[in-house]
Formats: sequence, structure tokens, C-alpha cells
Amino acid sequence: MGCADIAKKVSRAIAIAPNASIVAVASREAGKARRFIADNALPAGTKAYGSYEALIEDEDIEAVYMPLPTSLHVRWAVAAAVKRKHVLLEKPTALVVSDLDKILEACEHNGVQFMDGTMWMHHPRTARMKQVLSDPDLIGRIQMIHSTRAFSATPEFLETNIRIKPDLDSLGALGDLGWYCIGAILWAVDYQLPSSTTALPTVPSNKSGVILACAASLQWDDGKVATFHCTFLCNTAMDISIQGTSGSLHVADFVIPYQEDSASFELITGAHFAELHIGWSKTPDEVLTLTNLPQETLMVQEFARLVGLILSSGGRPDPKWPDTSRKTQLVMDAVKKSIDLGFKPVAL
Amino acid sequence: MGCADIAKKVSRAIAIAPNASIVAVASREAGKARRFIADNALPAGTKAYGSYEALIEDEDIEAVYMPLPTSLHVRWAVAAAVKRKHVLLEKPTALVVSDLDKILEACEHNGVQFMDGTMWMHHPRTARMKQVLSDPDLIGRIQMIHSTRAFSATPEFLETNIRIKPDLDSLGALGDLGWYCIGAILWAVDYQLPSSTTALPTVPSNKSGVILACAASLQWDDGKVATFHCTFLCNTAMDISIQGTSGSLHVADFVIPYQEDSASFELITGAHFAELHIGWSKTPDEVLTLTNLPQETLMVQEFARLVGLILSSGGRPDPKWPDTSRKTQLVMDAVKKSIDLGFKPVAL
Repeated sequence: MGCADIAKKVSRAIAIAPNASIVAVASREAGKARRFIADNALPAGTKAYGSYEALIEDEDIEAVYMPLPTSLHVRWAVAAAVKRKHVLLEKPTALVVSDLDKILEACEHNGVQFMDGTMWMHHPRTARMKQVLSDPDLIGRIQMIHSTRAFSATPEFLETNIRIKPDLDSLGALGDLGWYCIGAILWAVDYQLPSSTTALPTVPSNKSGVILACAASLQWDDGKVATFHCTFLCNTAMDISIQGTSGSLHVADFVIPYQEDSASFELITGAHFAELHIGWSKTPDEVLTLTNLPQETLMVQEFARLVGLILSSGGRPDPKWPDTSRKTQLVMDAVKKSIDLGFKPVAL
Repeated sequence: MGCADIAKKVSRAIAIAPNASIVAVASREAGKARRFIADNALPAGTKAYGSYEALIEDEDIEAVYMPLPTSLHVRWAVAAAVKRKHVLLEKPTALVVSDLDKILEACEHNGVQFMDGTMWMHHPRTARMKQVLSDPDLIGRIQMIHSTRAFSATPEFLETNIRIKPDLDSLGALGDLGWYCIGAILWAVDYQLPSSTTALPTVPSNKSGVILACAASLQWDDGKVATFHCTFLCNTAMDISIQGTSGSLHVADFVIPYQEDSASFELITGAHFAELHIGWSKTPDEVLTLTNLPQETLMVQEFARLVGLILSSGGRPDPKWPDTSRKTQLVMDAVKKSIDLGFKPVAL
């Protein structure tokens, strides 16, 4: 549903996934949908719809991938759920958590699976990092986390892209990029919500007031602190550093790995200084993970697997994915509120 | 002057430096000074003094290295400067900038060189990183910086070390570790002071109120933001990430390199995504720097070179080192003030 650039990547992912296939493409103009099908070499027989309504009325379709502007998510994700289509929704999931709740309630009520389009969550490296984080001997209690997500927007992007239009994606860099940082921080701490978040001054915005860059800190009552920085005004960056009482983990390409078939992270555990503090007892290890399928295909595969379970055995949707989306959105809302309040702490 | 653990490392550095030698060691007890000389195999003939006064009265001595508790710096650094001894002072330089100003005024008035003991500033890697930062094609305009300095204190340290005693080093982790982060951030931006700094909640402290961990953000009017986190409660960490409009630099061992004879940093410039955003156009390069002399020896050598210039040609002290110390101290004071004000922004 929608022919955004990201749909090219995801349609390739669907084509590669062993348990999913594309039935139809919808755009607001049928011609655009037809061109998308042709340009991306989608299978013969892929239907082209000139309206989103037509797509969700199609009874051959079991699930919808929705890369629409964020402001349209609540309308179309709810409409799809009501028609019993499972929903794979691009991030950020909504402009505010109350909108996301409408979507999640519609999915819950209609027994359909919800998942947001955060691809890196599905990479085997992510599971490997989680194993490391869960081993008390390797990282220990997490004390500090820092994440960045940056993208150097062209002047054209800053003029015309939907991600900086107040009526389409009013969260700007916070929604488009901060989503990853917040999600990664929450992932690292097993989705334990912070007690508060405080946005950091200052927040550059365009003339419509859309956020072009922002940073925030997250605090937990046990003393953990996380910071993140997201910006359209900096070269490509996507780091997360997680530092605990026993060790540290660092990865510089967590959202999109440098290469498609392998990804690594740096781990150092129990390092101390050499005598006289001239050097360290060890250097970080590089932990490598290989993958046969790209992470976006693994996302589609996992989504299709959950949909398949529901369709074949009448099971319930997996609550993990709506939960992680909602917690990410909750923190994003709180950061936005802190910005709007002039960088005051906002409790969660 | 003083037999702190760090003096072992620096006495080795002085022994290695081609233009410096140890004349005397002072402690509050002569026996302790004698033991230090023996334990560290200092040259025969090294004098042992049982008071700091005796050391600064010794006319054979041209310069003093001072690893005393911070609260004693102002008294003894001023006393040494008045006796025309050049002063190499351990960090943090003072508890407050007004104390440092007394030291700097005494050095200025007496024509002696001042330098603080921040060793990493003297590593050739640091100069190489500065070259990279100064090249507009490599990093571009700096947009965000993050630095951490962590150390996992033993229960014994947290009970007995001077660095957590309110009467000796009341700045705790901010003084001992935050000094490095603040200094590195200022170094990266050519010592352009931020317009404000805001400490981040929350700040764990021991029962005497000494800071065990803290974090803060620094803001500049041009939109740059830096964050740092320093803590006695986390495994060894000393990172700095500098991200600009064109590229990023990352180093995980900036304070004490993993190895003594070489050090590297990661640099990535002009990276963009591969088509369909599946992977990157490039991965970071590792930039390696070799050094014949350890960084603490290079510090001693540079200090001795500046002292030698003054002694041989009657020149003036180099203002670079007092300036960098003072700016670091100014920002540290502002962070402390922000903590004391309940995490309010403090203008600089």
C-alpha cells in the first residue's frame, strides 16, 4: 500500500522470503502502481490498484505492508485491520501513542498480527547481541547507552521530502531516525521503560517547525542513563554503545549493516589496565554473524510466519511486536513533549 | 611532589624522556619518598624530601610534577610558581576555576610554564586526529560528539581512595574522569566554549555527597551538541565519537591506548547507502599511528622543551596549555553548577 522508495526494498524482500508473495500493489493512481510493478520486476499477475480501499477489499490478500506517510497510518492501518488484513507498518508507527493505540486495538479486536517495519530487529546479529547482553559475565548491569542515527539530507530532501512535511511526518528526524535510537535503547534494556526522558537543547527545525535534529537523555531509577542523537544534518551514522559493569558492546551500523550477508559488533569484557596503566589487558573482539537472508527478508519471513500460524491454526497474534512498537512510541512521545515544554523532564 | 600511584608512571616517563631527569622526590614523610625512589629504581642521587616545602626550596629543581589531591593544588602549585618552578599539574587542575586562576596567575607572574597532566593530548594519534578534523573534506562541520570515561571502582576504592573523599577530591568522577571527556570535546571543537551545559539526571553519589557518576550535554549556538558520561560504576571505557556533515571519527581508547607503541582510530567519510539501501558504499578505515615514546613521555618531553626554551632564551611560557586547562575547568565548573542547581542549563 503505497509506492514509497522503501517499498522497493521491501518488495524485493517479499520476493526473496520463502513464505510470502506479493498479490497486489496499490497507489492513489493505478498508473503509478503499474509502473512500480514493472520497474521492480514484480511477478506477472501482480494486481495494480488505484486506491487503497480497493487493496483492502481484495480477499486474496492476507496482509498489508504500509509505507505511507505517518499521518495516514491510523486511518489505513485501522481500515486494513477491520478487513482482517495483518499489518506490517512502517516506522514511526504513529504521530502520537493514542493514534497507535487505535491501530493496536483494531488489530487486537480483529485478531490480526501487527508488526512495525524496524528491520534490524530481525538480523541474526541482533539476536547474538542480545545473547551477549543477557550473559551477566559479559556485560553485567548496563550503566550507559548511547545511540546516534544521522543522515545528511540534501537541500532537495529538506524542501520536498514527506519526512519533513508538517502535514505528513511532523515528527521529522525524531520520527524517522530517533525511532531507531529509542528502539535500540529499549531493546538493550529488555523494554524496561525509563522513569523519565529529557530532550536536550537545542532543536533545529525547518520553517514549518518540523524537527531536523534532536537529542535526549533517558533515565532509569536504577541509575542507568541513555542518550541519543538523531539528525538530518550529519553524515550517515547509526551507532549504539552499551556499557555495563563488566563489559561494553559497540556497533556502528546497527540499522543497516555495511554488508548484506554479514555483520559484526565489538565486544570487550573484563578489561583492565596493564601495570602502571600503560595499555590495556585486552582489546575488543569483533563478533561476526553471517546471514543467508537480508534482514528485511527475515522481517517479512517472521511476519509471514506469525500470520501463517494465525491463519492455519486460528492462533492469537504474537503480542511481542505491538508491545515493542508501543513502548518505542511512548518514549518518542515523551521526548516530543519534553521538546515542546522547553526541554523539561517528562515522566513515563 | 607526592607519591601517588600515577607518579610511578610519570617517573618512568621522565626517565625515558631525553630532555628531563628526576632530581628529587618529596612526600610528607621522607621515608615514603625514599621507598618510592627505591621501588621505582630512580637514579642514584635522587634526593628524598620529607616535605613539599623542602622540594620547592631546592635550587637544583627547575620544574615540579604535582600529583597531589585536587584540594591541595592551589596551595602547592602557587607556592612552586612563586619559587620559579615550572608546574606540571595533575588533572583535574582545581576544584573551581577561581582556584585555577590563582595558579595560572602565579605562573604567569613568575614566568613559569603551566601544563596539566592530560597525557593523551601528546600522543601522535591525537595530532593525526586533529589533522583529520581540520580537513573539511573528511569530517566537515562537526554536528555531534559523544564521549565516555568509565572505570569500575572496587568497593575498597569507593571506601578509601582520595578520588572520592570530599575534603580531597570533592568532584569525584566528574573531576577524575569527566575531565577527559570535557577536554576531548573541547579539543575536537578547537576549544570553542559551548554556550551552555546541562547536567543529566540523575547523579549517584556516595554518602559524603561525592559524585560517583554523571552525564551532561553541551550546546553551541551553531547547533553542535555534545554529550558525555563519566562513571566509577562501569567497566573501563574511554570513547569519543565525532560526527560531522561529511564523516565520522571514533576511538575507543583515547585516554590510554590499548598498546603503548601504536594507536588507531576509525574514520569514515562520504559514506552513503548502496542501491535500495542494502548496505553501505564503504566501511570505516582504521588509521594507525605508531609512536616510539609513550604518550606520558611525550608529555614530559614537550613540557621540558617549553621549560628549556624559557630557561635558555628567557622566552615566555606557551599560553596554549594554561588556556586549554582553563577552558576544561570552566566547563567542568558549569557542569557541577548544573548538578547543584538540579540539572538546569548553565550558560558559559
